[in-house]
Amino acid sequence: MSFRIEKDTMGEVQVPADKYWGAQTERSRNNFKIGPSASMPKEVIDGFAYLKKAAAYANYDLGVLPVEKRDAIAAVCDEILAGKLDEHFPLVIWQTGSGTQSNMNLNEVIANRAQVLAGGQIGEGEPILKANDDVNKSQSSNDTYPTGMHIAAYKAVVETTIPGVTQLRNTLAKKAADFKEVVKIGRTHLMDATPITLGQEISGYVAQLDYGLRSLNNSLSHLSEIALGGTAVGTGLNAPEGYDVLVAKYIAEFTGHPFVTAPNKFEALAAHDAIVESHGALKMLAVSLNKIANDVRMLASGPRSGIGEILIPENEPGSSIMPGKVNPTQCEALTMVAAQVMGNDVAITIGGTQGHYELNVFKPLMAYNFLQSARLIGDACMSFDEHCAQGIEPNHTRIKELVDNSLMLVTALNTKIGYYKSAEIAQTAHKNGTTLKEEAVRLGYVTAEDFDAWVRPETMVGNIK
Amino acid sequence: MSFRIEKDTMGEVQVPADKYWGAQTERSRNNFKIGPSASMPKEVIDGFAYLKKAAAYANYDLGVLPVEKRDAIAAVCDEILAGKLDEHFPLVIWQTGSGTQSNMNLNEVIANRAQVLAGGQIGEGEPILKANDDVNKSQSSNDTYPTGMHIAAYKAVVETTIPGVTQLRNTLAKKAADFKEVVKIGRTHLMDATPITLGQEISGYVAQLDYGLRSLNNSLSHLSEIALGGTAVGTGLNAPEGYDVLVAKYIAEFTGHPFVTAPNKFEALAAHDAIVESHGALKMLAVSLNKIANDVRMLASGPRSGIGEILIPENEPGSSIMPGKVNPTQCEALTMVAAQVMGNDVAITIGGTQGHYELNVFKPLMAYNFLQSARLIGDACMSFDEHCAQGIEPNHTRIKELVDNSLMLVTALNTKIGYYKSAEIAQTAHKNGTTLKEEAVRLGYVTAEDFDAWVRPETMVGNIK
Amino acid sequence: MSFRIEKDTMGEVQVPADKYWGAQTERSRNNFKIGPSASMPKEVIDGFAYLKKAAAYANYDLGVLPVEKRDAIAAVCDEILAGKLDEHFPLVIWQTGSGTQSNMNLNEVIANRAQVLAGGQIGEGEPILKANDDVNKSQSSNDTYPTGMHIAAYKAVVETTIPGVTQLRNTLAKKAADFKEVVKIGRTHLMDATPITLGQEISGYVAQLDYGLRSLNNSLSHLSEIALGGTAVGTGLNAPEGYDVLVAKYIAEFTGHPFVTAPNKFEALAAHDAIVESHGALKMLAVSLNKIANDVRMLASGPRSGIGEILIPENEPGSSIMPGKVNPTQCEALTMVAAQVMGNDVAITIGGTQGHYELNVFKPLMAYNFLQSARLIGDACMSFDEHCAQGIEPNHTRIKELVDNSLMLVTALNTKIGYYKSAEIAQTAHKNGTTLKEEAVRLGYVTAEDFDAWVRPETMVGNIK
Amino acid sequence: MSFRIEKDTMGEVQVPADKYWGAQTERSRNNFKIGPSASMPKEVIDGFAYLKKAAAYANYDLGVLPVEKRDAIAAVCDEILAGKLDEHFPLVIWQTGSGTQSNMNLNEVIANRAQVLAGGQIGEGEPILKANDDVNKSQSSNDTYPTGMHIAAYKAVVETTIPGVTQLRNTLAKKAADFKEVVKIGRTHLMDATPITLGQEISGYVAQLDYGLRSLNNSLSHLSEIALGGTAVGTGLNAPEGYDVLVAKYIAEFTGHPFVTAPNKFEALAAHDAIVESHGALKMLAVSLNKIANDVRMLASGPRSGIGEILIPENEPGSSIMPGKVNPTQCEALTMVAAQVMGNDVAITIGGTQGHYELNVFKPLMAYNFLQSARLIGDACMSFDEHCAQGIEPNHTRIKELVDNSLMLVTALNTKIGYYKSAEIAQTAHKNGTTLKEEAVRLGYVTAEDFDAWVRPETMVGNIK
Repeated sequence: MSFRIEKDTMGEVQVPADKYWGAQTERSRNNFKIGPSASMPKEVIDGFAYLKKAAAYANYDLGVLPVEKRDAIAAVCDEILAGKLDEHFPLVIWQTGSGTQSNMNLNEVIANRAQVLAGGQIGEGEPILKANDDVNKSQSSNDTYPTGMHIAAYKAVVETTIPGVTQLRNTLAKKAADFKEVVKIGRTHLMDATPITLGQEISGYVAQLDYGLRSLNNSLSHLSEIALGGTAVGTGLNAPEGYDVLVAKYIAEFTGHPFVTAPNKFEALAAHDAIVESHGALKMLAVSLNKIANDVRMLASGPRSGIGEILIPENEPGSSIMPGKVNPTQCEALTMVAAQVMGNDVAITIGGTQGHYELNVFKPLMAYNFLQSARLIGDACMSFDEHCAQGIEPNHTRIKELVDNSLMLVTALNTKIGYYKSAEIAQTAHKNGTTLKEEAVRLGYVTAEDFDAWVRPETMVGNIK
Repeated sequence: MSFRIEKDTMGEVQVPADKYWGAQTERSRNNFKIGPSASMPKEVIDGFAYLKKAAAYANYDLGVLPVEKRDAIAAVCDEILAGKLDEHFPLVIWQTGSGTQSNMNLNEVIANRAQVLAGGQIGEGEPILKANDDVNKSQSSNDTYPTGMHIAAYKAVVETTIPGVTQLRNTLAKKAADFKEVVKIGRTHLMDATPITLGQEISGYVAQLDYGLRSLNNSLSHLSEIALGGTAVGTGLNAPEGYDVLVAKYIAEFTGHPFVTAPNKFEALAAHDAIVESHGALKMLAVSLNKIANDVRMLASGPRSGIGEILIPENEPGSSIMPGKVNPTQCEALTMVAAQVMGNDVAITIGGTQGHYELNVFKPLMAYNFLQSARLIGDACMSFDEHCAQGIEPNHTRIKELVDNSLMLVTALNTKIGYYKSAEIAQTAHKNGTTLKEEAVRLGYVTAEDFDAWVRPETMVGNIK
Repeated sequence: MSFRIEKDTMGEVQVPADKYWGAQTERSRNNFKIGPSASMPKEVIDGFAYLKKAAAYANYDLGVLPVEKRDAIAAVCDEILAGKLDEHFPLVIWQTGSGTQSNMNLNEVIANRAQVLAGGQIGEGEPILKANDDVNKSQSSNDTYPTGMHIAAYKAVVETTIPGVTQLRNTLAKKAADFKEVVKIGRTHLMDATPITLGQEISGYVAQLDYGLRSLNNSLSHLSEIALGGTAVGTGLNAPEGYDVLVAKYIAEFTGHPFVTAPNKFEALAAHDAIVESHGALKMLAVSLNKIANDVRMLASGPRSGIGEILIPENEPGSSIMPGKVNPTQCEALTMVAAQVMGNDVAITIGGTQGHYELNVFKPLMAYNFLQSARLIGDACMSFDEHCAQGIEPNHTRIKELVDNSLMLVTALNTKIGYYKSAEIAQTAHKNGTTLKEEAVRLGYVTAEDFDAWVRPETMVGNIK
Repeated sequence: MSFRIEKDTMGEVQVPADKYWGAQTERSRNNFKIGPSASMPKEVIDGFAYLKKAAAYANYDLGVLPVEKRDAIAAVCDEILAGKLDEHFPLVIWQTGSGTQSNMNLNEVIANRAQVLAGGQIGEGEPILKANDDVNKSQSSNDTYPTGMHIAAYKAVVETTIPGVTQLRNTLAKKAADFKEVVKIGRTHLMDATPITLGQEISGYVAQLDYGLRSLNNSLSHLSEIALGGTAVGTGLNAPEGYDVLVAKYIAEFTGHPFVTAPNKFEALAAHDAIVESHGALKMLAVSLNKIANDVRMLASGPRSGIGEILIPENEPGSSIMPGKVNPTQCEALTMVAAQVMGNDVAITIGGTQGHYELNVFKPLMAYNFLQSARLIGDACMSFDEHCAQGIEPNHTRIKELVDNSLMLVTALNTKIGYYKSAEIAQTAHKNGTTLKEEAVRLGYVTAEDFDAWVRPETMVGNIK
């Protein structure tokens, strides 16, 4: 392996010759050998690329950066966003909690790559760009990292989470409509209860996802606020007047999302409550999805010794030892994702509590957990939708068999003969293994005709559709 | 102790003669000896009292309950709300997960108390009210408990949490204004950084609480939706047409809060995502409050060997062994509350995931944790405000001493002489224990005059106020 | 209400005349109106009573306290332990995080009550005992509170948790033996799998609880170590030589539990990892109990539209609207307790992380959550055992119907005809709604005789009993 | 891209021609596009390789597999362990919760690779090995995945976590010894307290890690128990007599770790409490490490406006905007890791609760979180040790300045003049900004000579070393 010498304010460092990073990135590589390398999420790197380009434009507009430097910076940022420089971002999540080293990784790569793009050699001749003085101009790690984090988080939510959840929600809404007349037994406490339609049951899932999406959307305005312009401690030291608003405008333009400058930069550096807030909504969705996936696998359980009221697609052999077995694997993936998101919520919560004075130094942790959750929910909903939800069908035979047999149809008699006599009928039928009708008539509480008129599952699914 | 005999559909039960509860309450008392007695929150009992009265009114309006029964029910509900019958609600949280037994506790107490109010004796003569057929008419535990829970939760948030947080927020906003010119050292990574004003620092706390309050307010519309009218499984079986909307109207009227009927009753019984959602906002506030309280105690640390930049009220002797010691005890109470809320959030999250089919049976758990969090945050903010925040004052001497001495003032030179030379100045001063000015001049990078002109803490706190 | 004047180093305070507490307790009452009053767990107060008495004995033995003072202190401690002075401990959990105010509450009550026991009047004449100089001699809040917490926690685990879990474990072990020949369908992924006996299934629960109990027992040695003797910061300042060992000996003697002095007092004040460790074991038990209770309710689900393989006691009417309904309510209470314990674990974890320098100031929070978990698990296991587990019986008819019908019996053919042909048989039978035997013979893979010989559920439950 | 056709019991599937995996792996790849590909931890794949080889050996010994097949399987397993086949394991964590698809991935790769090693072509000629009938012989996903998970988890703990924590512990023990005479101010509630030595303070950290290591070691016996031999539901169906013990013996031999067969296979499949238990110990370590790292950064804070009592290595420039800034970055990485582990603990807890009947289907989730925690703790401790702890040095000047100035030295007077007079001295000095001695003498409570004799920090650090 061949090396070149890079230096920073602490002195010289050997760096792999074929990589664009500089001294500070290399120091971080050596000092933080924690977990797999290059674990800092690519989405955060991209967030930085957007903001570095935007900063260059704003700095130019405000007269503190020449146009050549602006364009040199922008050109490299575009390469980063195109995925051409991925190998030059080797750092891990578990570095300094401000993400300074990843900020410097960007600054160094942009400066060195610009040198090469300009036909120069790294470290030779007059530098096209200086990492700290040009690329990082009007910036600090303390405002860039949270900005990159918000860009990444917002994009993940809007581009992955919401589309995935929405697609599943729409499929379920269609199923709710399709099955709105399929009368089945309801279950409370896992025990037989009064009838419900399969469509009604599924409509509850749709409502859950709608609430979750609304909550997630409510959180987006906080997430759209960016720290950039606060620089080191939120005061905006060394950034020109008007810079914060302008740089947010460029970020909005470059990303196509409505980012704005945070009205209070002190909060934006020292706390990451926006991440806590939006992840709270992701966790709420995880709670909903867990309920939905769990119901689906219980309703589909069997094929012969379970509930078996619905059929779901058989996607793959389910067992390496039990031939012919098929399992609700999409439900399992989705509930595992839900559990992960709930764990991530605690990591984010703890990280969020620990800001000290002017800076929260759990930024990479919070970004990592947030991005994982946002992507996993989006992907898992998409997967669950395509490989499970779309294929849900009622098992009409089984559904009818179970509803007809249920003792809880007796509830229809409450308003006719009162709760106590109704209970006596149900209890007697349960004890004797007989039907409600047999016992109702035998006990003399209801005639056979009245029973047939009053106890009809299809009329017990309510005035609610 | 003297007893009377009560009965339910399962048979006879001995009940303390001086208590209004009936057979099912007594069964629950005997079957669930888990934790201290009477742990079901009084706020939930009150929520039930509101809804039982509202149900009676709606049932009367819809022609299914005579006016005498309506008024008999309402009269007892008013007594419950006035706190006159507290001793008659002995049940625990750790009962059936639908809260059925607490619903029956209400039904039984209302029926028996009405008998007494009418001059009768419990269990003798024609009953004024039947627990199941009259008091519980058009209801099920499955829709009443979540309704009572939402009433209790909404009231706790609006009447305790929000006022407490708002009062603290307003005090902090006043402090932020009062101290907006107090220039002090900023700190990032717990290390000295560039200057900031004490008012700016505190303004970040205000912003945090404003975001948290907004998030909490965003969640209230979900929480204002009530399940009542869904009855057993969400279909509204045995409830008259129009009942759900009407009963919500009465609840809104009686409580003075804008409750409405849930548009989807299946969701409202089977999931408690509204509780998950609003508690997510409470947890977000806990995160913010933890940050704030932690900062306050660090800034106030000392009196001689800490940071000591602010003074907080000395409320009580701080040590049983160290004479004269005073501690930031309000910060400690507040951060303990924050930790409790974060734990409660996990309990609520887990409870929220475990709805099965038509019913979530973690209702009492969720209600208990929610109400504890809502009250603790409100109370603790009030306490922190009155006994700590209102008394925060700058320690001007200490603040000036620290800011004047700071090496990070060198940052002001970045835009004059570049990052590298500035770093050299700071590093040399650090190594030699000298001042920035001495080294800046000695290294020949800046004249003494320029240094004095450029490095002025009061000009480094930015264009952001 | 009548008052008397008490004073402390900060001045005078009005205190209710009929209460034994003094100035510092009253200050705390006024300064911490957070949540219900008197929430500091009685078990902690008792822990303090043990240690105050032990300290008095040790101080006497070491020549720093006269015998009359020793006996005066001990007499009041005995009253506290007998529950005679409960009304004199009004403080809340959410006070100073060192529990100083509760320590002073004990010191004050002991001093004032001793005055009265000696025939004197509070605040008049020569004091029998001084709160700080005598009752608190050789102590600090910083070592007394963790000592009281460990005493309370250890006792709760050993006297409530372990007996409750053990009783349930023993019932399940008996059931496992009783049902060891009851062959039933196994289920994996909630789907039909190969057979198992009901006894085998339950033996897994027994193993879970055995592991949990072992883990809890493993943690007890850490919990048995007490901080007393460390005084303010762990150095033992103002405590006589040998005091720490001696006072632990007295605590062991008075409580009947093997408490010893902590080998490192700095850890014992600044960290509460013993609480974190033992609560980790409680949480592990909660995980196990959740699994067990969940299985029981699923296996008992029905009565007609569920799994219905086991019968559990019908303890109370299950629904206020559905007559005759019976629910697995003990399972619900137990799983709610499990969720609470998991939430408490997070609160304790967060509290545990936040020790600063020489002291962790989340002590009351940690004590409260620990004691709640320990008691809830013990109580809920006892309740579940008595009202559910002891009554578990197989529903033989249902069990046989389901196992005979299962397609997964085909697994027995793997070793005879290979996995692929076996799968074909099962898939065909599934598609056609036929039996395995029909398809096995029809496909020509197995003769009817071989099928009957090879596919016998009772021989498929293994060489493992 | 070129493809070949593979098939399973459901039919044909196109598979990339250059990959060894088969139909079921490909189905999983297509059906579970959730998160980044190949996220199933390599450590789990290796665990499978060990067990597949061990199973082949046990099967051969027990007469159910010919020696050629045994050796063919073993040869590929050795290649996998050597890292030669990494690209052939493309599956994700978020698949079926039993890990069946990863088990089949192993089965398929081993069968196909063996074909090639034997000079054959995949899918042509007589297969050397059949994936289900040979490679998976006497196995099920349900017992292999937990076995692979335990192998991976045990190895990670023993080979990464424990060495990392131990190395840090040893460094801290050395520092505790080195600094045992360095008298400094103690701090409780973040406020000045009585003196302590730096060595005593650090000895508390050592004790914390010792307890954590003991707890982790206590948990290893459970983790060393493996499910293999239980097959589909724990009964051992289709596995030969004696196989479970024998296969565990081979796994122990091949891995060099003391694995044994689980005494109860039902527990070993249906619950993963061993993972919950050991991760509880990892979480306890995270709690300790958080405390330690937090203390270090607070003690090192400054350089001029913080506590500054210790010096830590300056490893890299700390700020992209503030020249010369150095931050406690190793503390930040370590506390972020701690937060991650606490979040992972919740994910594992939730996964652990959700076993149903004979199988827990949150296996990959639990494995993933466990392995991440185990590695991060080990790596982060190593990093913290090398780049921070080893370089901790006292700042003697600062330490002396702070301790001499402290008001809490007054505590030494308690046993001479009582708590009240001592408090008066301290309060007066605090109010007047004077020294204790001045006020003690002025108030007439102590002579100057006595003061000097009694109040000496170096004698206040106790009889505890």
